Amino acid sequence: MINTTELARATAEAARVLMTLSAEQKEQILIEMASQLRKQHPVILKANQRDVQQAKVSGLSDAMLDRLTLTPERINQMALGIEKIAGLPEVVGTETLFGHRPNGLEIKKKRIPLGVVCMIYEARPNVTSDAAALCFKSGNGVILRGGKECLQSSLAIAAVLQSVLTEHQLPEALISVIPDADRKIVAELLTLKQYIDVVIPRGGEGLVNYVSENSQIPVIQHYKGVCHLYVDKDADLQKAINILLNGKTQRPGVCNALEGLLVHQAIAEEFLAELEPQLLNLGVKIHACVKAQRYLSDANLLSEAEFGQEYLALELAIRVVEDVHQAIDHIDKFGSNHTEVICTENQRTAEIFQHMVDASVVMLNASSRFSDGGELGLGAEIGIATTKLHAYGPMGIESLTTEKFLVTGDGQVRS
Amino acid sequence: MINTTELARATAEAARVLMTLSAEQKEQILIEMASQLRKQHPVILKANQRDVQQAKVSGLSDAMLDRLTLTPERINQMALGIEKIAGLPEVVGTETLFGHRPNGLEIKKKRIPLGVVCMIYEARPNVTSDAAALCFKSGNGVILRGGKECLQSSLAIAAVLQSVLTEHQLPEALISVIPDADRKIVAELLTLKQYIDVVIPRGGEGLVNYVSENSQIPVIQHYKGVCHLYVDKDADLQKAINILLNGKTQRPGVCNALEGLLVHQAIAEEFLAELEPQLLNLGVKIHACVKAQRYLSDANLLSEAEFGQEYLALELAIRVVEDVHQAIDHIDKFGSNHTEVICTENQRTAEIFQHMVDASVVMLNASSRFSDGGELGLGAEIGIATTKLHAYGPMGIESLTTEKFLVTGDGQVRS
Repeated sequence: MINTTELARATAEAARVLMTLSAEQKEQILIEMASQLRKQHPVILKANQRDVQQAKVSGLSDAMLDRLTLTPERINQMALGIEKIAGLPEVVGTETLFGHRPNGLEIKKKRIPLGVVCMIYEARPNVTSDAAALCFKSGNGVILRGGKECLQSSLAIAAVLQSVLTEHQLPEALISVIPDADRKIVAELLTLKQYIDVVIPRGGEGLVNYVSENSQIPVIQHYKGVCHLYVDKDADLQKAINILLNGKTQRPGVCNALEGLLVHQAIAEEFLAELEPQLLNLGVKIHACVKAQRYLSDANLLSEAEFGQEYLALELAIRVVEDVHQAIDHIDKFGSNHTEVICTENQRTAEIFQHMVDASVVMLNASSRFSDGGELGLGAEIGIATTKLHAYGPMGIESLTTEKFLVTGDGQVRS
Repeated sequence: MINTTELARATAEAARVLMTLSAEQKEQILIEMASQLRKQHPVILKANQRDVQQAKVSGLSDAMLDRLTLTPERINQMALGIEKIAGLPEVVGTETLFGHRPNGLEIKKKRIPLGVVCMIYEARPNVTSDAAALCFKSGNGVILRGGKECLQSSLAIAAVLQSVLTEHQLPEALISVIPDADRKIVAELLTLKQYIDVVIPRGGEGLVNYVSENSQIPVIQHYKGVCHLYVDKDADLQKAINILLNGKTQRPGVCNALEGLLVHQAIAEEFLAELEPQLLNLGVKIHACVKAQRYLSDANLLSEAEFGQEYLALELAIRVVEDVHQAIDHIDKFGSNHTEVICTENQRTAEIFQHMVDASVVMLNASSRFSDGGELGLGAEIGIATTKLHAYGPMGIESLTTEKFLVTGDGQVRS
C-alpha cells in the first residue's frame, strides 16, 4: 500500500509553490494542459479501454459503464472544460480594505487558496481533469481519489497534466492521483488534517455519508436533491406546467430534478386535470396524497411517511396544500435544502416563500434544473453543497478559497 | 438522561420563528435581556455559589475557579456585552445582486442564519450569555453545553434570558442549555446533523480534538496559538522590542500571545543584547537555537524538535534565521495558522512575508495581541478559527450566517 501521509505531505508542500505563480502563468499552464490532453488522447483512450474491459468483467451497470467510457470527443470536452476554467477571472490574491481602527491599524482581507483539496469520487474520469483544473486555477494542491473502476484512466489523464507541470518546473505532486484502489486508503486520507484542508466527496449518498461520518478534516457535503415545486393559487398555470414538466422529465436522474409537487387547494382540480395527461404521456408515475388523488385518474396513494423520496426517475409525489405556509411546512419536513421552486404571480406570496424556505436555491417562476453552477453564472462548478458551512448551494471556484486578515501598523502594542 | 434529539429538534423548530422577527425586535429583546441579567443578578450569584462550592470540593485549579466565579461586576460585564451585541448592524436578510443571465433569470444572494449552533465549552459562565446573544442576534437557535462545573450558573443565566423570550411569546428552546453533565450527551449531540448546523468547541486542545474527531456535524475548529514575531534586518529595533514584550508578557496565557521569536542574523547580536535584560527582568524564561544562544547569557538550548510549543506562560523560543524565507519556512513548519508578525521597514520584505505566510492573521509592525475580533473591528467574537473552511481567524457575527441563492424568472425552463 502507498504511503498516504507522504503523498499528502508532498502535495501540501507543492501547494506552497503555487502561491508564487501569477494569474497569467496559471492561465497559460491550463491552456497547455488542455492542448496536451487533445494531443495525447490515444494514450488516455488506451488506459480507459483497460478500465472498461475490467469493468465489463466486474459486471458494472450500463449507466456506470457509459460514464466510464471515454471517446476522442469526450476527451475534447474535458479539454474545453479546462480552457473554460483557464479563462475564468482570477480569484486569489485580491485584497479588500476591511477598516481602520482608532489606534491607526489598517485591516485588510486577502483572498487565499484553501491549501490542499481532497476529492473523493466514483467512476467518472472527467472529474479527474475538472477537479485538477479547478484546484490549480484557485491555487490549491489536489489529491484525487476516484473509484477503482476509473483508476487507469485517471492515472493517464493526470500523467498528461503532470507532464505540463514538469515542463514548467512545477512539482507533479500538485496533482496527485492515489494509485491504489484499496478502500483503507480513504479512511487514512480522512485523518490527515495536518496536510489536507478540505474533503469534497462527489457521488452517491453512501459515499457522502461515509466520508462525513469518518473525516477529521472539514467536509463539504452534498447529500441529495429532494426538490419541490409549489404551485400557488395565483400562479400562471401554463408557466407552472412547463416548469413542472421540465423539472421532472428533462433529466430525471440528476439532483436538481423535481421530486415533489405541492398544489394550492383552490386551483388543484383545474391544474391537476390539465397536468395529468401530459405526465402520463411522458411516462411519469404519479404518487399522491388523498386529496390530490381525488383529482387524478391514475395515481398511487402515498402515506405521510412515504413523501420526501429522491426518485431520480420518472416518478412524482403530489400533495394538495391549504396555502403557502403549509407548502413551506412540507418542504421543511421533506426537502433536502437543495432547490425549491414557487410558481406565483403574487409578489407577497413569493416573498414569504423565498424568505421562509430553507434551501440553498429558492426560485420563483423558473425551472429547478437551473440550479447549477454554470446556469447561475458561477463559471464552473466543483460541487453543490447542501449543508451551510463555507458554501451553500452550487459552488464556484471561489468556494476553493478563503480570506486571511492583513494588519498593518507602525509599532502599535495593546494596553 | 435527557432526550437530546427532542431538545435539538425543539431548538431547530424554534429557530424558524426567529426568521419572522425584525432587526428592531431582536435589538429590543437583547436590551431587555441585559437589563434582566442586571436585575436578577442575586439569583445568578446564588446558583454560581453552588457551582463554586462544588468546584472547591472537586479541587478545581485556582485559574479555573477564577473564571468560574461571578460577581455583580462580572454580571454587569455580561450585560454590557449583550448590549454591545444588540447594537451591532443587522447581518441577516441583506440581498445582493449576483447577476442576470442571458435567458433573463435574475440571480441574487440573501444572507441567512445557519440555523442551530451548538456551543461546547468549559467552565466559563460568561460564554453562556455571550453565545446566546450572538446566536440570537444572527438569527440562530443555540444549544449550550458548558462544562459541568458551571452548570448551575449557566442554567440560571439561561433562565433569565428565556424569561424575556417568554414575555415576547417566543419559544424558550431558542436558547437551550443541556441540563445534564453526563459526558455521553456530547457524543450524542455530535450525531444530530438533521437538527444542528454547526458545532463550535471553545476550550483546550483536548476538547477541540475530541469534538472534531467525533462530530458528524461541521465543526469550526480553533486548535492553538503558536504565534511568532520575525524581526527583519530592516526592522526598527525599538518597535520590535515593544511588540515582542507586549506579545509575550502582556497576557501570556492567551492564544494570541507570542511563543516564538525569529531574528535575522544581521541584527541578531545587537537585537538580542538589547532584548535579553528586559526579558529576564520581566521573568521570561528563554529557549534558544545554537546561534541565538551565542548572543544570550541565560538561554536554555532548544533542539529542532522542541520548537513550536504553545507555552501559554512566560517562556520564549528564539531562533536566528538567515533571511525572511527561512523565517517563513520555520513558521510553515512550527506555526499553528493563528497569527504571525513581521517587524520591518522594508515594504518588499513585508509583502513577501504577508503573501507567503499561511496564517489567519498576518501583521506588519503591530502586536500579535491585536488578533481578536474586537480589536480587528468585528464588533464581537464568537471564536477564532485556525482551519480555513467557512471562517479563518477571528470570527464575527457574520460567521454565524451563510447565503442562499434567490432566482427570479418568468417561466424559464432549461432546454
